Amino acid sequence: MQYSPLITELIAALTHLPGVGKKSAQRMAFHLLERNRDGAMQLSNVLHNAMEHVKHCQSCRTFTESSLCDICNDPMREEAGQLCIVESPQDVIAVEQTLEFKGRYFVLMGHLSPIDGIGPNEIGLDELEGLLTSGKFKEVILATNPTVEGEATAHYIAQMCKTLQISASRLAHGMPVGGELEYVDGNTLMHAFTGRRAI
Amino acid sequence: MQYSPLITELIAALTHLPGVGKKSAQRMAFHLLERNRDGAMQLSNVLHNAMEHVKHCQSCRTFTESSLCDICNDPMREEAGQLCIVESPQDVIAVEQTLEFKGRYFVLMGHLSPIDGIGPNEIGLDELEGLLTSGKFKEVILATNPTVEGEATAHYIAQMCKTLQISASRLAHGMPVGGELEYVDGNTLMHAFTGRRAI
Ligand SMILES: [Zn+2]
Ligand SMILES: [Zn+2]
Repeated sequence: MQYSPLITELIAALTHLPGVGKKSAQRMAFHLLERNRDGAMQLSNVLHNAMEHVKHCQSCRTFTESSLCDICNDPMREEAGQLCIVESPQDVIAVEQTLEFKGRYFVLMGHLSPIDGIGPNEIGLDELEGLLTSGKFKEVILATNPTVEGEATAHYIAQMCKTLQISASRLAHGMPVGGELEYVDGNTLMHAFTGRRAI
Repeated sequence: MQYSPLITELIAALTHLPGVGKKSAQRMAFHLLERNRDGAMQLSNVLHNAMEHVKHCQSCRTFTESSLCDICNDPMREEAGQLCIVESPQDVIAVEQTLEFKGRYFVLMGHLSPIDGIGPNEIGLDELEGLLTSGKFKEVILATNPTVEGEATAHYIAQMCKTLQISASRLAHGMPVGGELEYVDGNTLMHAFTGRRAI
Protein backbone atom coordinates (compact mmCIF):
# COMPACT_ATOMS: atom_id res chain seq x y z
CA MET A 1 0.00 0.00 0.00
CA GLN A 2 1.27 3.40 -1.03
CA TYR A 3 -0.02 6.96 -1.16
CA SER A 4 -1.97 7.89 -4.29
CA PRO A 5 0.22 8.49 -7.39
CA LEU A 6 0.10 12.30 -7.13
CA ILE A 7 0.97 12.32 -3.44
CA THR A 8 3.82 9.84 -4.07
CA GLU A 9 5.10 12.13 -6.84
CA LEU A 10 4.82 15.17 -4.57
CA ILE A 11 6.83 13.49 -1.80
CA ALA A 12 9.52 12.44 -4.32
CA ALA A 13 9.70 15.94 -5.84
CA LEU A 14 10.10 17.56 -2.41
CA THR A 15 13.26 15.49 -1.82
CA HIS A 16 14.90 17.56 -4.58
CA LEU A 17 15.25 20.21 -1.89
CA PRO A 18 18.64 19.98 -0.15
CA GLY A 19 18.44 18.55 3.37
CA VAL A 20 14.98 17.08 2.82
CA GLY A 21 14.73 13.30 3.20
CA LYS A 22 11.73 11.08 2.62
CA LYS A 23 10.25 11.54 6.09
CA SER A 24 10.50 15.36 6.02
CA ALA A 25 9.11 15.38 2.48
CA GLN A 26 6.08 13.43 3.70
CA ARG A 27 5.52 15.86 6.53
CA MET A 28 5.83 18.80 4.12
CA ALA A 29 3.43 17.26 1.57
CA PHE A 30 0.69 16.66 4.13
CA HIS A 31 1.21 20.00 5.82
CA LEU A 32 0.69 21.77 2.48
CA LEU A 33 -2.30 19.61 1.49
CA GLU A 34 -4.00 20.02 4.86
CA ARG A 35 -3.12 23.53 5.87
CA ASN A 36 -1.52 25.67 3.21
CA ARG A 37 -2.69 24.99 -0.34
CA ASP A 38 -2.47 28.69 -1.19
CA GLY A 39 1.13 28.81 0.01
CA ALA A 40 1.94 25.70 -2.03
CA MET A 41 0.35 27.19 -5.17
CA GLN A 42 2.36 30.35 -4.65
CA LEU A 43 5.55 28.32 -4.19
CA SER A 44 4.74 26.45 -7.41
CA ASN A 45 4.38 29.71 -9.37
CA VAL A 46 7.45 31.39 -7.91
CA LEU A 47 9.60 28.29 -8.49
CA HIS A 48 8.51 28.25 -12.12
CA ASN A 49 9.19 31.97 -12.65
CA ALA A 50 12.51 31.93 -10.84
CA MET A 51 13.86 28.90 -12.73
CA GLU A 52 12.71 30.39 -16.01
CA HIS A 53 13.86 33.99 -15.54
CA VAL A 54 16.78 34.08 -13.12
CA LYS A 55 20.03 34.16 -15.12
CA HIS A 56 23.53 35.47 -14.42
CA CYS A 57 24.37 39.20 -14.42
CA GLN A 58 26.26 39.87 -17.66
CA SER A 59 28.96 41.74 -15.80
CA CYS A 60 29.45 40.19 -12.32
CA ARG A 61 27.82 36.75 -12.85
CA THR A 62 25.59 36.95 -9.77
CA PHE A 63 22.01 35.69 -10.07
CA THR A 64 19.48 38.23 -11.33
CA GLU A 65 16.49 38.33 -13.65
CA SER A 66 17.78 41.52 -15.33
CA SER A 67 20.69 41.61 -17.78
CA LEU A 68 22.69 43.61 -15.22
CA CYS A 69 22.22 43.33 -11.44
CA ASP A 70 21.37 46.41 -9.36
CA ILE A 71 24.98 46.92 -8.26
CA CYS A 72 26.46 46.66 -11.76
CA ASN A 73 23.74 49.01 -12.96
CA ASP A 74 24.71 51.69 -10.43
CA PRO A 75 27.36 54.08 -11.89
CA MET A 76 28.33 55.18 -8.33
CA ARG A 77 29.62 51.67 -7.61
CA GLU A 78 32.06 51.84 -10.50
CA GLU A 79 33.62 55.16 -9.38
CA ALA A 80 35.34 53.53 -6.42
CA GLY A 81 37.50 51.57 -8.89
CA GLN A 82 37.39 48.53 -6.59
CA LEU A 83 36.35 45.00 -7.52
CA CYS A 84 35.55 42.53 -4.75
CA ILE A 85 35.75 38.89 -5.79
CA VAL A 86 33.53 36.42 -3.95
CA GLU A 87 32.48 32.82 -4.42
CA SER A 88 28.68 33.14 -4.27
CA PRO A 89 25.71 35.55 -4.50
CA GLN A 90 25.16 34.97 -0.74
CA ASP A 91 28.66 36.38 -0.14
CA VAL A 92 27.73 39.60 -1.98
CA ILE A 93 24.87 40.10 0.46
CA ALA A 94 27.15 39.32 3.43
CA VAL A 95 29.72 41.94 2.32
CA GLU A 96 27.00 44.49 1.50
CA GLN A 97 25.64 44.15 5.02
CA THR A 98 28.94 45.44 6.47
CA LEU A 99 28.34 48.77 4.62
CA GLU A 100 32.15 48.84 4.32
CA PHE A 101 32.52 48.42 0.58
CA LYS A 102 31.30 50.79 -2.15
CA GLY A 103 32.80 49.15 -5.23
CA ARG A 104 31.64 46.38 -7.54
CA TYR A 105 31.72 42.59 -7.33
CA PHE A 106 32.68 39.61 -9.38
CA VAL A 107 30.98 36.37 -8.38
CA LEU A 108 32.91 33.21 -9.23
CA MET A 109 29.92 30.92 -8.55
CA GLY A 110 32.34 28.46 -7.00
CA HIS A 111 36.10 28.06 -6.59
CA LEU A 112 38.92 26.29 -8.40
CA SER A 113 38.70 22.56 -7.79
CA PRO A 114 40.75 20.60 -10.35
CA ILE A 115 39.64 17.30 -8.81
CA ASP A 116 36.02 18.14 -9.74
CA GLY A 117 37.02 19.45 -13.16
CA ILE A 118 36.46 23.06 -12.12
CA GLY A 119 39.20 25.13 -13.75
CA PRO A 120 39.59 28.88 -14.46
CA ASN A 121 36.96 28.98 -17.22
CA GLU A 122 34.31 27.28 -15.08
CA ILE A 123 34.57 30.10 -12.54
CA GLY A 124 34.55 32.84 -15.18
CA LEU A 125 38.19 33.91 -14.99
CA ASP A 126 38.17 34.64 -18.74
CA GLU A 127 35.34 37.14 -18.15
CA LEU A 128 37.17 38.48 -15.10
CA GLU A 129 40.27 39.12 -17.21
CA GLY A 130 38.15 41.09 -19.69
CA LEU A 131 36.77 43.16 -16.82
CA LEU A 132 40.23 43.82 -15.36
CA THR A 133 41.72 44.92 -18.70
CA SER A 134 38.86 47.44 -19.15
CA GLY A 135 40.83 49.92 -17.00
CA LYS A 136 37.83 50.52 -14.72
CA PHE A 137 39.34 48.90 -11.64
CA LYS A 138 42.46 49.95 -9.71
CA GLU A 139 42.13 47.45 -6.87
CA VAL A 140 40.96 43.90 -6.52
CA ILE A 141 39.83 42.60 -3.12
CA LEU A 142 39.97 38.83 -2.88
CA ALA A 143 37.13 37.76 -0.62
CA THR A 144 36.97 34.05 -1.41
CA ASN A 145 36.38 31.74 1.54
CA PRO A 146 39.35 31.08 3.88
CA THR A 147 39.34 27.38 2.91
CA VAL A 148 42.00 25.45 0.98
CA GLU A 149 40.14 25.91 -2.32
CA GLY A 150 39.28 29.54 -1.56
CA GLU A 151 42.92 30.35 -0.81
CA ALA A 152 44.13 28.58 -3.96
CA THR A 153 41.59 30.50 -6.02
CA ALA A 154 42.66 33.80 -4.43
CA HIS A 155 46.32 33.08 -5.21
CA TYR A 156 45.51 32.21 -8.81
CA ILE A 157 43.63 35.49 -9.28
CA ALA A 158 46.37 37.43 -7.44
CA GLN A 159 48.86 36.17 -10.07
CA MET A 160 46.53 37.34 -12.81
CA CYS A 161 46.33 40.78 -11.17
CA LYS A 162 50.14 40.96 -10.91
CA THR A 163 50.46 40.30 -14.66
CA LEU A 164 47.86 43.00 -15.36
CA GLN A 165 49.53 45.37 -12.87
CA ILE A 166 46.44 45.78 -10.73
CA SER A 167 46.94 45.79 -6.96
CA ALA A 168 45.22 42.91 -5.16
CA SER A 169 44.49 42.45 -1.47
CA ARG A 170 43.12 39.58 0.56
CA LEU A 171 40.60 39.96 3.39
CA ALA A 172 42.38 40.13 6.76
CA HIS A 173 42.15 37.10 8.91
CA GLY A 174 39.72 37.55 11.68
CA MET A 175 37.46 35.11 9.95
CA PRO A 176 37.68 31.57 11.33
CA VAL A 177 40.06 29.53 9.15
CA GLY A 178 38.14 26.82 7.32
CA GLY A 179 34.89 28.74 7.73
CA GLU A 180 32.57 30.06 5.07
CA LEU A 181 32.09 33.76 4.38
CA GLU A 182 28.32 33.44 4.30
CA TYR A 183 28.20 32.33 7.95
CA VAL A 184 30.60 34.90 9.39
CA ASP A 185 28.88 37.57 11.50
CA GLY A 186 28.76 41.07 10.03
CA ASN A 187 31.05 42.63 12.62
CA THR A 188 33.89 40.14 12.11
CA LEU A 189 33.49 40.48 8.38
CA MET A 190 33.67 44.28 8.66
CA HIS A 191 36.96 44.06 10.58
CA ALA A 192 38.31 41.52 8.13
CA PHE A 193 37.45 43.95 5.38
CA THR A 194 39.16 47.02 6.81
CA GLY A 195 42.22 45.01 7.83
CA ARG A 196 42.76 43.45 4.40
CA ARG A 197 46.41 43.00 3.45
CA ALA A 198 48.30 43.19 0.14
CA ILE A 199 48.81 39.83 -1.51
CA MET B 1 21.03 45.58 -0.62
CA GLN B 2 18.81 42.62 -1.21
CA TYR B 3 18.59 39.72 -3.64
CA SER B 4 16.74 40.44 -6.89
CA PRO B 5 12.92 40.58 -6.55
CA LEU B 6 12.36 37.07 -7.96
CA ILE B 7 14.99 35.50 -5.71
CA THR B 8 13.57 37.35 -2.68
CA GLU B 9 10.10 36.01 -3.59
CA LEU B 10 11.47 32.50 -4.00
CA ILE B 11 13.13 32.56 -0.57
CA ALA B 12 9.90 33.84 1.02
CA ALA B 13 7.78 31.20 -0.74
CA LEU B 14 10.08 28.39 0.42
CA THR B 15 9.44 29.36 4.05
CA HIS B 16 5.84 28.15 3.52
CA LEU B 17 7.34 24.68 3.95
CA PRO B 18 7.13 23.52 7.58
CA GLY B 19 10.48 23.54 9.38
CA VAL B 20 12.10 25.83 6.80
CA GLY B 21 13.35 29.17 8.14
CA LYS B 22 14.88 32.05 6.20
CA LYS B 23 18.42 30.67 6.23
CA SER B 24 17.39 27.19 5.01
CA ALA B 25 15.14 28.78 2.39
CA GLN B 26 18.12 30.76 1.06
CA ARG B 27 20.24 27.63 0.87
CA MET B 28 17.42 25.81 -0.95
CA ALA B 29 16.85 28.65 -3.42
CA PHE B 30 20.52 28.86 -4.43
CA HIS B 31 20.93 25.11 -4.54
CA LEU B 32 18.02 24.84 -6.98
CA LEU B 33 19.17 27.80 -9.10
CA GLU B 34 22.75 26.55 -9.29
CA ARG B 35 22.38 22.84 -9.43
CA ASN B 36 18.89 21.54 -9.96
CA ARG B 37 16.65 23.70 -12.13
CA ASP B 38 15.05 20.61 -13.67
CA GLY B 39 14.20 19.28 -10.21
CA ALA B 40 12.76 22.67 -9.24
CA MET B 41 10.62 22.82 -12.39
CA GLN B 42 9.35 19.32 -11.67
CA LEU B 43 8.56 20.31 -8.07
CA SER B 44 6.70 23.35 -9.38
CA ASN B 45 4.53 21.21 -11.68
CA VAL B 46 3.85 18.48 -9.14
CA LEU B 47 2.95 21.03 -6.43
CA HIS B 48 0.47 22.64 -8.80
CA ASN B 49 -1.11 19.33 -9.83
CA ALA B 50 -1.27 17.97 -6.30
CA MET B 51 -2.87 21.12 -4.84
CA GLU B 52 -5.36 21.22 -7.69
CA HIS B 53 -6.33 17.55 -7.87
CA VAL B 54 -5.80 15.93 -4.47
CA LYS B 55 -9.14 15.87 -2.60
CA HIS B 56 -10.61 13.67 0.11
CA CYS B 57 -11.84 10.12 -0.55
CA GLN B 58 -15.64 10.29 -0.53
CA SER B 59 -15.85 7.32 1.79
CA CYS B 60 -12.88 7.33 4.18
CA ARG B 61 -11.75 10.99 3.87
CA THR B 62 -8.08 10.19 3.20
CA PHE B 63 -6.24 12.23 0.56
CA THR B 64 -6.58 10.93 -2.98
CA GLU B 65 -7.02 12.34 -6.49
CA SER B 66 -9.78 9.78 -7.27
CA SER B 67 -13.30 9.97 -5.89
CA LEU B 68 -12.60 6.80 -3.89
CA CYS B 69 -9.14 5.78 -2.64
CA ASP B 70 -7.63 2.41 -3.62
CA ILE B 71 -8.65 0.77 -0.35
CA CYS B 72 -12.28 1.94 -0.45
CA ASN B 73 -12.39 0.85 -4.09
CA ASP B 74 -11.34 -2.71 -3.23
CA PRO B 75 -14.41 -4.92 -2.50
CA MET B 76 -12.16 -7.41 -0.62
CA ARG B 77 -11.45 -4.80 2.03
CA GLU B 78 -15.14 -4.44 2.83
CA GLU B 79 -15.70 -8.18 3.37
CA ALA B 80 -13.71 -8.18 6.63
CA GLY B 81 -16.47 -6.00 8.15
CA GLN B 82 -13.84 -4.05 10.11
CA LEU B 83 -13.34 -0.30 10.15
CA CYS B 84 -10.09 1.11 11.52
CA ILE B 85 -10.30 4.74 12.61
CA VAL B 86 -7.11 6.80 12.41
CA GLU B 87 -6.20 10.46 12.67
CA SER B 88 -4.23 10.94 9.44
CA PRO B 89 -3.43 9.49 5.99
CA GLN B 90 0.12 8.78 7.28
CA ASP B 91 -1.44 6.51 9.92
CA VAL B 92 -3.22 4.47 7.21
CA ILE B 93 0.17 3.75 5.62
CA ALA B 94 1.67 2.89 9.04
CA VAL B 95 -1.13 0.36 9.75
CA GLU B 96 -0.97 -1.05 6.21
CA GLN B 97 2.74 -1.74 6.64
CA THR B 98 2.00 -4.15 9.52
CA LEU B 99 0.05 -6.34 7.03
CA GLU B 100 -2.13 -7.14 10.06
CA PHE B 101 -5.36 -5.48 9.00
CA LYS B 102 -7.53 -6.38 6.01
CA GLY B 103 -10.52 -4.10 6.60
CA ARG B 104 -11.28 -0.50 5.70
CA TYR B 105 -10.33 2.83 7.24
CA PHE B 106 -11.90 6.06 8.30
CA VAL B 107 -9.52 9.02 8.49
CA LEU B 108 -10.53 11.76 10.92
CA MET B 109 -7.96 14.25 9.53
CA GLY B 110 -7.36 15.37 13.12
CA HIS B 111 -8.84 14.75 16.55
CA LEU B 112 -11.41 16.39 18.83
CA SER B 113 -9.99 19.60 20.26
CA PRO B 114 -12.76 21.84 21.64
CA ILE B 115 -10.22 24.53 22.55
CA ASP B 116 -9.32 24.89 18.85
CA GLY B 117 -12.97 24.73 17.76
CA ILE B 118 -12.58 21.19 16.41
CA GLY B 119 -15.76 19.33 17.25
CA PRO B 120 -17.36 16.11 15.94
CA ASN B 121 -18.35 17.60 12.57
CA GLU B 122 -14.86 18.94 11.85
CA ILE B 123 -13.45 15.41 12.08
CA GLY B 124 -16.25 13.90 9.97
CA LEU B 125 -18.16 12.06 12.69
CA ASP B 126 -21.44 12.77 10.86
CA GLU B 127 -20.05 10.90 7.83
CA LEU B 128 -18.70 8.18 10.12
CA GLU B 129 -22.17 7.69 11.60
CA GLY B 130 -23.56 7.28 8.08
CA LEU B 131 -20.93 4.66 7.35
CA LEU B 132 -21.60 2.78 10.60
CA THR B 133 -25.38 2.67 10.07
CA SER B 134 -24.85 1.17 6.58
CA GLY B 135 -24.57 -2.27 8.20
CA LYS B 136 -21.28 -2.99 6.41
CA PHE B 137 -19.13 -2.98 9.53
CA LYS B 138 -19.28 -5.31 12.52
CA GLU B 139 -16.25 -4.03 14.34
CA VAL B 140 -14.60 -0.67 14.81
CA ILE B 141 -10.91 -0.48 15.74
CA LEU B 142 -9.98 2.82 17.34
CA ALA B 143 -6.40 3.59 16.30
CA THR B 144 -6.22 7.27 17.20
CA ASN B 145 -2.95 8.42 18.78
CA PRO B 146 -2.36 7.50 22.47
CA THR B 147 -2.39 11.20 23.41
CA VAL B 148 -4.93 13.06 25.54
CA GLU B 149 -6.84 14.26 22.45
CA GLY B 150 -6.56 10.90 20.70
CA GLU B 151 -7.94 9.07 23.76
CA ALA B 152 -10.80 11.56 24.12
CA THR B 153 -11.65 11.14 20.45
CA ALA B 154 -11.55 7.33 20.78
CA HIS B 155 -13.90 7.46 23.78
CA TYR B 156 -16.33 9.73 21.95
CA ILE B 157 -16.47 7.35 18.99
CA ALA B 158 -16.72 4.32 21.32
CA GLN B 159 -19.90 5.89 22.78
CA MET B 160 -21.26 6.33 19.27
CA CYS B 161 -20.52 2.66 18.51
CA LYS B 162 -22.26 1.55 21.73
CA THR B 163 -25.41 3.44 20.72
CA LEU B 164 -25.29 1.83 17.25
CA GLN B 165 -24.55 -1.60 18.80
CA ILE B 166 -21.28 -2.06 16.97
CA SER B 167 -18.37 -3.53 18.93
CA ALA B 168 -15.40 -1.21 19.29
CA SER B 169 -11.84 -1.96 20.36
CA ARG B 170 -8.83 0.20 21.09
CA LEU B 171 -5.25 -0.63 20.02
CA ALA B 172 -3.35 -2.38 22.83
CA HIS B 173 -0.76 -0.37 24.62
CA GLY B 174 2.66 -1.24 23.52
CA MET B 175 2.84 2.11 21.85
CA PRO B 176 4.62 4.76 23.91
CA VAL B 177 2.05 6.85 25.78
CA GLY B 178 2.02 10.39 24.41
CA GLY B 179 3.61 9.21 21.16
CA GLU B 180 2.28 9.48 17.64
CA LEU B 181 1.16 6.49 15.60
CA GLU B 182 3.06 7.62 12.55
CA TYR B 183 6.41 7.32 14.34
CA VAL B 184 5.86 3.92 15.98
CA ASP B 185 7.92 1.13 14.40
CA GLY B 186 6.02 -1.49 12.44
CA ASN B 187 6.71 -4.34 14.83
CA THR B 188 5.40 -2.51 17.90
CA LEU B 189 2.40 -1.38 15.93
CA MET B 190 1.71 -4.96 14.82
CA HIS B 191 1.72 -6.18 18.42
CA ALA B 192 -0.47 -3.26 19.46
CA PHE B 193 -2.87 -4.30 16.73
CA THR B 194 -3.16 -7.99 17.64
CA GLY B 195 -3.45 -7.21 21.36
CA ARG B 196 -6.24 -4.64 20.94
CA ARG B 197 -8.78 -4.66 23.77
CA ALA B 198 -12.54 -4.05 23.92
CA ILE B 199 -13.47 -0.52 24.92
ZN1 LIG C 1 26.19 42.38 -11.58
ZN1 LIG D 1 -11.07 5.83 0.99
